[in-house]
Amino acid sequence: MLIILRSHADQETIDRVVEQIEKLKMQAHISQGEYRTIIGALGDETPIQPDQFLAIDGVAKVVPIMQSFKLAGRDFCPEDSIIEVSGVKVGRGHYAWIGGPCTVESRESSLDIAAAVRRCGANMMRGGAFKPRTSPYSFQGLGEEGLKILSECREKHHLPVVTEVMDPREVELVCKYADMIQIGARNMQNYSLLVEVGKANKPVLLKRGPSASVKNWLLSAEYVLSNGNKDVILCERGSQSFETDTRFTLDVGAIAVAKRDTHLPVIVDPSHAAGRWNLVEPLTLAGLAAGADGIIVEVHNCPEKARCDGPQALTEKRFSELMKHARALVNVLGKQ
Amino acid sequence: MLIILRSHADQETIDRVVEQIEKLKMQAHISQGEYRTIIGALGDETPIQPDQFLAIDGVAKVVPIMQSFKLAGRDFCPEDSIIEVSGVKVGRGHYAWIGGPCTVESRESSLDIAAAVRRCGANMMRGGAFKPRTSPYSFQGLGEEGLKILSECREKHHLPVVTEVMDPREVELVCKYADMIQIGARNMQNYSLLVEVGKANKPVLLKRGPSASVKNWLLSAEYVLSNGNKDVILCERGSQSFETDTRFTLDVGAIAVAKRDTHLPVIVDPSHAAGRWNLVEPLTLAGLAAGADGIIVEVHNCPEKARCDGPQALTEKRFSELMKHARALVNVLGKQ
Amino acid sequence: MLIILRSHADQETIDRVVEQIEKLKMQAHISQGEYRTIIGALGDETPIQPDQFLAIDGVAKVVPIMQSFKLAGRDFCPEDSIIEVSGVKVGRGHYAWIGGPCTVESRESSLDIAAAVRRCGANMMRGGAFKPRTSPYSFQGLGEEGLKILSECREKHHLPVVTEVMDPREVELVCKYADMIQIGARNMQNYSLLVEVGKANKPVLLKRGPSASVKNWLLSAEYVLSNGNKDVILCERGSQSFETDTRFTLDVGAIAVAKRDTHLPVIVDPSHAAGRWNLVEPLTLAGLAAGADGIIVEVHNCPEKARCDGPQALTEKRFSELMKHARALVNVLGKQ
Amino acid sequence: MLIILRSHADQETIDRVVEQIEKLKMQAHISQGEYRTIIGALGDETPIQPDQFLAIDGVAKVVPIMQSFKLAGRDFCPEDSIIEVSGVKVGRGHYAWIGGPCTVESRESSLDIAAAVRRCGANMMRGGAFKPRTSPYSFQGLGEEGLKILSECREKHHLPVVTEVMDPREVELVCKYADMIQIGARNMQNYSLLVEVGKANKPVLLKRGPSASVKNWLLSAEYVLSNGNKDVILCERGSQSFETDTRFTLDVGAIAVAKRDTHLPVIVDPSHAAGRWNLVEPLTLAGLAAGADGIIVEVHNCPEKARCDGPQALTEKRFSELMKHARALVNVLGKQ
Repeated sequence: MLIILRSHADQETIDRVVEQIEKLKMQAHISQGEYRTIIGALGDETPIQPDQFLAIDGVAKVVPIMQSFKLAGRDFCPEDSIIEVSGVKVGRGHYAWIGGPCTVESRESSLDIAAAVRRCGANMMRGGAFKPRTSPYSFQGLGEEGLKILSECREKHHLPVVTEVMDPREVELVCKYADMIQIGARNMQNYSLLVEVGKANKPVLLKRGPSASVKNWLLSAEYVLSNGNKDVILCERGSQSFETDTRFTLDVGAIAVAKRDTHLPVIVDPSHAAGRWNLVEPLTLAGLAAGADGIIVEVHNCPEKARCDGPQALTEKRFSELMKHARALVNVLGKQ
Repeated sequence: MLIILRSHADQETIDRVVEQIEKLKMQAHISQGEYRTIIGALGDETPIQPDQFLAIDGVAKVVPIMQSFKLAGRDFCPEDSIIEVSGVKVGRGHYAWIGGPCTVESRESSLDIAAAVRRCGANMMRGGAFKPRTSPYSFQGLGEEGLKILSECREKHHLPVVTEVMDPREVELVCKYADMIQIGARNMQNYSLLVEVGKANKPVLLKRGPSASVKNWLLSAEYVLSNGNKDVILCERGSQSFETDTRFTLDVGAIAVAKRDTHLPVIVDPSHAAGRWNLVEPLTLAGLAAGADGIIVEVHNCPEKARCDGPQALTEKRFSELMKHARALVNVLGKQ
Repeated sequence: MLIILRSHADQETIDRVVEQIEKLKMQAHISQGEYRTIIGALGDETPIQPDQFLAIDGVAKVVPIMQSFKLAGRDFCPEDSIIEVSGVKVGRGHYAWIGGPCTVESRESSLDIAAAVRRCGANMMRGGAFKPRTSPYSFQGLGEEGLKILSECREKHHLPVVTEVMDPREVELVCKYADMIQIGARNMQNYSLLVEVGKANKPVLLKRGPSASVKNWLLSAEYVLSNGNKDVILCERGSQSFETDTRFTLDVGAIAVAKRDTHLPVIVDPSHAAGRWNLVEPLTLAGLAAGADGIIVEVHNCPEKARCDGPQALTEKRFSELMKHARALVNVLGKQ
Repeated sequence: MLIILRSHADQETIDRVVEQIEKLKMQAHISQGEYRTIIGALGDETPIQPDQFLAIDGVAKVVPIMQSFKLAGRDFCPEDSIIEVSGVKVGRGHYAWIGGPCTVESRESSLDIAAAVRRCGANMMRGGAFKPRTSPYSFQGLGEEGLKILSECREKHHLPVVTEVMDPREVELVCKYADMIQIGARNMQNYSLLVEVGKANKPVLLKRGPSASVKNWLLSAEYVLSNGNKDVILCERGSQSFETDTRFTLDVGAIAVAKRDTHLPVIVDPSHAAGRWNLVEPLTLAGLAAGADGIIVEVHNCPEKARCDGPQALTEKRFSELMKHARALVNVLGKQ
């Protein structure tokens, strides 16, 4: 970390900075230029925040040198990780093809949809049993009943299932039924929940928050990793922006940056960003072209009867088309 | 809710929309114009999502007519609410003047700061015991030890204390010590937590998420209210934006809109938006001028030794100045 | 346009709305529901702004029904347009492959780069002679000297050239040398300039502003089209956002929405969004996968000596790789 | 400027950086730490862009030390500037109170409104003759006819007038009639126009672009200043954001930062940010409380007949109220 002092900083300021550096068990290295004094703080920067120097009068800027995440970073693991979800590999050329309804609505429709996504070539199924809803008056999901239905879908159609957990008290319950547990975008910085899934023995799908930087997304992954769970898959699903023709702004740059900076697999959720089914395919292909290791797409047997997010759900026919195009694309991208 | 069909919509589309309206226990009212058919859905819109119509082919737009929140709205309660926090009233001309450290660091410094903010005229104290930190390697707060210190501050200095709760499992513990429990910005859409504090018997300070619309903020308040807890104070603390000279963009428009649309008190947190102590006062005054019913400001006895957010912390001297100016301002705004 | 009145609107409000509708030479169609009165304004909405009704007390919402752009829209021209730039076709399966330096720096380096991009398969060359620079103290481009160099590049290497015009007084000059004139992102809403290039006899490359909605982008295209120039190519180059790891957030959703709503070709500029050369390729591929009809990429023979935007410039070797991958991708997307 | 190399940078990288520094006529100062080499570039940073070093392989970060603007900065002029607009002083405790219609619509309504704002205590009048409109089909202003009407308003009601210029070719014309010329938000980075008004002999009101950082806003001011025109007043009018309940997000933090970093006066336009008349007053007061040196507010004698922006226009009665509250507020803020 470099601490850049204001011009004409006096000895007292220098002393204070050095004292603070030493208190933080780092070594100070003073470089007095003609115009500016710069003090390097050498040692493990990870737990240090720039704030701890910026609060000192006379400090102009603090420049971190090292990345703030460790276990998620390429320094820790240069090669792409492969995460296994009940036998399905994701990463390093292995793709996650996840389809399913926004919400588990009934046993019948879920089994129908499971069969459909299986036919289209999906290797996992999605479906919400606990739903984070903006309004307390909206349908909140079937809860454990929904988890049981998902479980049945897995058995019948040989599809590992991924479903969201919203509450640290429900992690155990969700793990009982799910093959991968999802942290939704709004919970990306719900640290109690991250710690809890960090102790679980299931892969975690971590969505990027709608206004989270890639750096903070990776730090959220670090919460899971540092609590012992090494199986994290990241998922980009769109940022909050001023544009209203799409529901969120799919940030393919974030996918590319994440692929560069972390060894963890990154997949793309085009459905929430699109908001309308007719934008789902171009966003899917864009995400894969940017380097994503898979997709998670909303599919419904009757979108107009869906209890949630119907306008963005694909029918089997449309998902089948999309899968064909997506596979052709990843073939040409030189992966399996 | 108005459902506007695409031009030349056929009878089948109309029938589908009407069927859906009736399934949702609303009444359909068809208005066939020369160019467009518009179908009104009459009845309680609150639990209905536009999605449920948008997914029908042939529907062009869906226009909600009623507000999506009820208990938080002015229709439910036209007059400003007064919320009482252990004897301190907030709202309808009563101001919350809250000061204190970002984090409770030690018994000694906390008592010092409590005395200081009391001297400056604060009527409540803030301080974090459970801290949501971007990095798992940063200091996470003293936990229950911190709550006990806050409790002691209240006793010694007659200041109700407000502190954050991050985990539904800790609501009971935090309520044991705190006078008001805070939902931090990153947890504004942590619905499990909102439901839990909705069942608690303590006032709730609900911060606006960094990319949450006012509408979604009020829907989060609705989660608390609809679970039985009527004592919610809203807090604007800045939105995520492209500007880097401030930490967040304080949205005074959101304060004004909230004051117009809800009866709940709204206060302003200028510290997190400012990021630097020398911007705290102008943002405080701006928030109050926009209509805020109080302030929550970070104060520290030695900002440069603060474990967290030191650069934005005010010294007693600066907080004392700010309080003087803030009080003069609210006097002229015509409130008590 | 639908004008939705507040509940319990009186006859006076209705009369005012109707009067306003008739003043605007549209027909009023009143529909009195149980709860709400809705007044349809039938006729050509294009020149009408919702404001003209919203200002009337008693009006709750105004809902436009028609698209605000005409000539740019699919209703006007359902099939994809092909724009020809000095013999190079763009659109409907024809791709623009544009490479070149950010700024024309010297005759020698420009000719070098022209040769290089030609070798890599580019069918047009880019290069700035008039540069919009954030600071008045930065290099502002070579002006007409630069245009002459570009002209020489075209002659020697058979590449139509595209270059930016910033000033309505320079449109004629730039047209003398360029094959396509570019409106930069910061000038997307410089209407005097749009009108002027609308009268010019050259294709126009219109970049999307960093915080412009797709709708406003198409309205800017409408300025050019409605002034008589039918040859507009749109270019997405990234939105302003909170993310700092990329320079701008490439909005592939905007590409997909534009391709759906307009017949004009849309290309992608991955360089300005990336900000770093190692993100240029994934963003290029993402843009094409989202449906873009071509790319415009910064290439330099010695990026570290570039006077502008060196960090995002590709070397010939890297551009050659990118071109290979981009062509493979568009082949699989089923276009020529 | 500090150039921070990647860890284990070799001598060749160091040599390249030093060569580049010397080419830019600055002095290199190498500081070799245990982990990192940092090279300081000493001298005038103003014309230097970080890019010129970032493009060198082996460079990790570039940290500017000096501000990129000069004449606009506090280093150049520590004390607040006073700008005089035809006798009306603005800055250092002198307030601009500007009211008037969005657009000059007719002689009669303009004279009416001028009289009204004069009665309310305004000391300048606003009104658009050349209007930047999102759609080419919207009313574009009366042009020179409008300027003449404004001139008459000034004569009759002793109010200096401010009006927008959009085209460098019209600067001379507008200067003939106006007392202050406005650069609209969408033209903040229209550098040809900035250069032209920089050569004019009239004060310039420079609005902040909807997605411009304060730094870039001040650099746009620098364009005007460095071309010889010292009379620049800045105007904050709201940023583009995801919030839809306000038209733009008024950024009071930007006002506070600008007041800290520049000596130029800064005023606030609450009307465009509000979008609705009932939010104009709280935003006005917030802007002033944040430190603004004045206001520019849309006033109309009959908002519902306004050709543009009627919903946000104040009637005389409401503007009169607002002026009373605004004056009371600035009195208490301790300014004249």
